Amino acid sequence: MALLERHDTGAVAHLTLNAPEKLNALSDGMLAALQEEFDRLKDDTATRAVIIKGAGKAFCAGHDLKEMTAGRQAEDGGKAYFKDLFDRCSRMMTSIRKLPQPVIAQAHGIATAAGCQLVASCDMAVAAEGTKFGVNGVNIGLFCSTPMVALSRNIARKHAFEMLTTGQFIPAEKAEALGLVNRVVPHDQLDDATQELAETVAAKLGAAVKIGKEAFYNQIEMPLDAAYDYAGDVMVQNMLYRDTAEGIAAFLEKRPPEWSQ
Amino acid sequence: MALLERHDTGAVAHLTLNAPEKLNALSDGMLAALQEEFDRLKDDTATRAVIIKGAGKAFCAGHDLKEMTAGRQAEDGGKAYFKDLFDRCSRMMTSIRKLPQPVIAQAHGIATAAGCQLVASCDMAVAAEGTKFGVNGVNIGLFCSTPMVALSRNIARKHAFEMLTTGQFIPAEKAEALGLVNRVVPHDQLDDATQELAETVAAKLGAAVKIGKEAFYNQIEMPLDAAYDYAGDVMVQNMLYRDTAEGIAAFLEKRPPEWSQ
Amino acid sequence: MALLERHDTGAVAHLTLNAPEKLNALSDGMLAALQEEFDRLKDDTATRAVIIKGAGKAFCAGHDLKEMTAGRQAEDGGKAYFKDLFDRCSRMMTSIRKLPQPVIAQAHGIATAAGCQLVASCDMAVAAEGTKFGVNGVNIGLFCSTPMVALSRNIARKHAFEMLTTGQFIPAEKAEALGLVNRVVPHDQLDDATQELAETVAAKLGAAVKIGKEAFYNQIEMPLDAAYDYAGDVMVQNMLYRDTAEGIAAFLEKRPPEWSQ
Repeated sequence: MALLERHDTGAVAHLTLNAPEKLNALSDGMLAALQEEFDRLKDDTATRAVIIKGAGKAFCAGHDLKEMTAGRQAEDGGKAYFKDLFDRCSRMMTSIRKLPQPVIAQAHGIATAAGCQLVASCDMAVAAEGTKFGVNGVNIGLFCSTPMVALSRNIARKHAFEMLTTGQFIPAEKAEALGLVNRVVPHDQLDDATQELAETVAAKLGAAVKIGKEAFYNQIEMPLDAAYDYAGDVMVQNMLYRDTAEGIAAFLEKRPPEWSQ
Repeated sequence: MALLERHDTGAVAHLTLNAPEKLNALSDGMLAALQEEFDRLKDDTATRAVIIKGAGKAFCAGHDLKEMTAGRQAEDGGKAYFKDLFDRCSRMMTSIRKLPQPVIAQAHGIATAAGCQLVASCDMAVAAEGTKFGVNGVNIGLFCSTPMVALSRNIARKHAFEMLTTGQFIPAEKAEALGLVNRVVPHDQLDDATQELAETVAAKLGAAVKIGKEAFYNQIEMPLDAAYDYAGDVMVQNMLYRDTAEGIAAFLEKRPPEWSQ
Repeated sequence: MALLERHDTGAVAHLTLNAPEKLNALSDGMLAALQEEFDRLKDDTATRAVIIKGAGKAFCAGHDLKEMTAGRQAEDGGKAYFKDLFDRCSRMMTSIRKLPQPVIAQAHGIATAAGCQLVASCDMAVAAEGTKFGVNGVNIGLFCSTPMVALSRNIARKHAFEMLTTGQFIPAEKAEALGLVNRVVPHDQLDDATQELAETVAAKLGAAVKIGKEAFYNQIEMPLDAAYDYAGDVMVQNMLYRDTAEGIAAFLEKRPPEWSQ
């Protein structure tokens, strides 16, 4: 079995973290496998949505502490290895928002530390009832500083600060209320609910979703006026797509669109 | 009947989008009428609050797709027209936050695409039960990129992303929980509740509301230290208003203030 | 009795605003006493968490309006005094986030204007049922521009705008839903609940909390890629702490860590 399994249903790619005995830890191998898959998906116009899920009883428990501890044996006490490790991990996380496809985290069991960061880094997230979310590195003396980058861009400050400094888990319902996940469903409906969300976005015009997703994350970091200038240009580009002309014409003529892609 | 009706009650201006047969679409004419009214309100110190509402069964359904489609007949396929259109629309939306008066969206029925952007662009919003909010351009192949600028500055990222890529509507209660509207009331109380909110802010010292509203949107885009430097200067200016001195004196003397404006 | 009482329980410092007859107003004296205490705590590695609370029936009612009014007697109408006052106040507020220790507001009764800003400026907040929060300066003609800097970084825009322009109070439960406080407890459990939260964070490795808290507020103002570069460096530094190595080793060996600090 590969560390990362890929299984496609129609235009939806399912990526399954497959190291259940390690609670799907983001080991060097897992990070590389995810990066490789994202690099492939980047130019894959046939795939319209991506789901990330975990095999076994947890979504993902974060970094592989045994590997990290082994890294300390180097002459520099692990400094170069850790730097490279966090760089690779951050690159993997930010690759998600650079993909043309919406990426959905399908969370169950626990999502902790870099595993919680993975949920926060996805464009959307669906969670099973009973899932627990935490950034609990502080409990072992390692503040979850890189997970915090993603987490603090998902939820309000005081709640993020509490999670980071207490190391305590929050239940799925609270994660939904705070904005970390889009919806919570009974565990036996998790697959279906996530698949349904993925198919909904996969049915849209791929070129429109692609340009829109890219613009979403670009404009969000701009001052208002610059954001509007930029988004206006994106709208013009989008309007000039032949498939968009067809989509609008079909809507006005009350018929389904015939899209080329 | 004009495309945009204005009716004042005391210091509160009511602007009614009045093209119910087009679900109050933001046509070229409607955009111009709104801009004209905002340009007038900019220097109108007698008006202390503005309400924007829609005639007929919906608040606003966004751009006028028939007009946009007609724009494609130009030699450049509509490129120049679309650019100009989105520029005019963004200018209208950002004019709202540049007004000295608080502007309240009074939403009912549906508020979709640029209509949802109009709600997000207002300083506050009151919605009737049953109102549906969406940014559903993606359904016809046109990602709501400019509406997203306003929406993503109102609600958390994952929820904004879901609305933008699924094109699905959210009910008023969810819009309130997410931060898109301030409150939801039964439909038959919508007029009164919005009027009450408008009158509450209209009763404040206009000069203080004006300087405060301007500072609100300016400081929110600054780093913390710069924001405090700037806001401190604003507070000093505000303290030196004669009416503010009177307001504070009246409070300490437990009597109502006698303001000149 | 001092204006600001300090009482320590283990590694937790309790600072009590002690001017109950003035609803613990942030007078010149109170601002100086808080700043002095924060300057002391900055280098105090034995203190691991700080609680700020108010004596009497309110947490804090904001600036001392009588002092401010007296300041108007100067030749410049108070301009220089007000500038200096807001500078000192902003410096006190931002000192909280520069402290190495998490700071928790323990709110009861009312927290209004700069008192509400104090809650917003703390890293976390616990409130008693019945506590009311407001930024009501607008009622006397003085828009709460500096409180707004902190408030608008805690809660969504439309809710912040409403509080600032209506001057109306929100109950503790709404403050929690909006993100202004972390939790609400019955009044007779307020001391215990706050103490428990403080002890939870005080039990963590101080060096990790310190570097993490600093990074939290630094990265939150950066674009995503810069935030990840920075947070990655922070994680490397944290990994190289001897106590963190011990924390991770202890976790892997399923024993409690033996930390030097």
